[in-house]
Amino acid sequence: MTTRRGRRPGPSGTRGAILAAAQRQFAELGYDRASMRSIAEEAGVDQRLVAYFFGSKQQLFVAAVELQLPSDIAEAVPDVFSGSRRTLGHRLARRMVAMLEDPRTRDQIVGAVRAAASEPEAARMLRDLRHRVLHELGTPIAEVLGDDQIELRIALVNTQFLGLVMARHIVCVEPLPSLDSEQLIALLGPILQRLLTGPITVGDARRS
Amino acid sequence: MTTRRGRRPGPSGTRGAILAAAQRQFAELGYDRASMRSIAEEAGVDQRLVAYFFGSKQQLFVAAVELQLPSDIAEAVPDVFSGSRRTLGHRLARRMVAMLEDPRTRDQIVGAVRAAASEPEAARMLRDLRHRVLHELGTPIAEVLGDDQIELRIALVNTQFLGLVMARHIVCVEPLPSLDSEQLIALLGPILQRLLTGPITVGDARRS
Repeated sequence: MTTRRGRRPGPSGTRGAILAAAQRQFAELGYDRASMRSIAEEAGVDQRLVAYFFGSKQQLFVAAVELQLPSDIAEAVPDVFSGSRRTLGHRLARRMVAMLEDPRTRDQIVGAVRAAASEPEAARMLRDLRHRVLHELGTPIAEVLGDDQIELRIALVNTQFLGLVMARHIVCVEPLPSLDSEQLIALLGPILQRLLTGPITVGDARRS
Repeated sequence: MTTRRGRRPGPSGTRGAILAAAQRQFAELGYDRASMRSIAEEAGVDQRLVAYFFGSKQQLFVAAVELQLPSDIAEAVPDVFSGSRRTLGHRLARRMVAMLEDPRTRDQIVGAVRAAASEPEAARMLRDLRHRVLHELGTPIAEVLGDDQIELRIALVNTQFLGLVMARHIVCVEPLPSLDSEQLIALLGPILQRLLTGPITVGDARRS
């Protein structure tokens, strides 16, 4: 078996099977209850092989999510930020909802949010992902937003997205889980549009 | 001490003593530094008894928080929802930020969100809390909001709050953790005002 260690998917069926099992179990069971043993079992391999390829459970998780999530997001951003500024929020809502409806990306996202809540390493991964997206895709975003409080606006969109994942997929705050895609897009579009292009207030003074 | 709570109706003084010690230690030391062992010591019981009553540290935390958080929130809601409808968002923002600045309530809230992300039991606790608040305080809320999509609006506020806790306190999405209280209130006030009283769109048709 020739495999390259690290993030590369590599030609290894075994490594791929472990990653697929890990992605599924982290999303479904949460970080704490998924185990190296149960993941090895599902992938049909010896548990020591999981440790050999990935080291710790934390590293396995980061590999599982980090492998695909960045490319999904990097692909989504230019699509969303090209086109009319007036319909930006709607395009973003449509893309967010699509990622949460596709079981593959939903598992990754929900798993990443679950893990970030209890694992500093996973929280760091989400921060890094955000930095990378802002670094690589800052230009199309700035062109549309006109360089007006970009970092803060993106942070508010991240807040909305993290809240949506928590409220709709983890805590299950009704009626959010009962809304279908089109209803959710109609609801979120105007909210995101205002966060990205509406007036934004933040006091200048530090009074703490 | 006779105490009645949760699933087990038993009048166990031991259980109550463990909960009291847990509340004190989680509040004073935070979730990470409080341990089952130190809580057992303070309660004067064997550590195995703590595990017997509560299972994991996370479950003990949920039981401890479930006793206090509801009263903090039940106290906040009537304050926020009495007064001018025009400044509702600002009052809510001020109250949310105050709860996240006070170390005691912040620890409970951040701990509850962390726990909810990986423990279905804790997610259920947050759902129940929401139901109770809506049930008990639905009338003052409905009076201010005029009965217009109340459940959905409250769900959007919950989403915003969960997202804020994740983005500011757990993932640390800049610049949110660097904003002081007044800046954060100025930022959130108008966002919450629109979620509570602004136009809201959600398609009628189920097209899923």
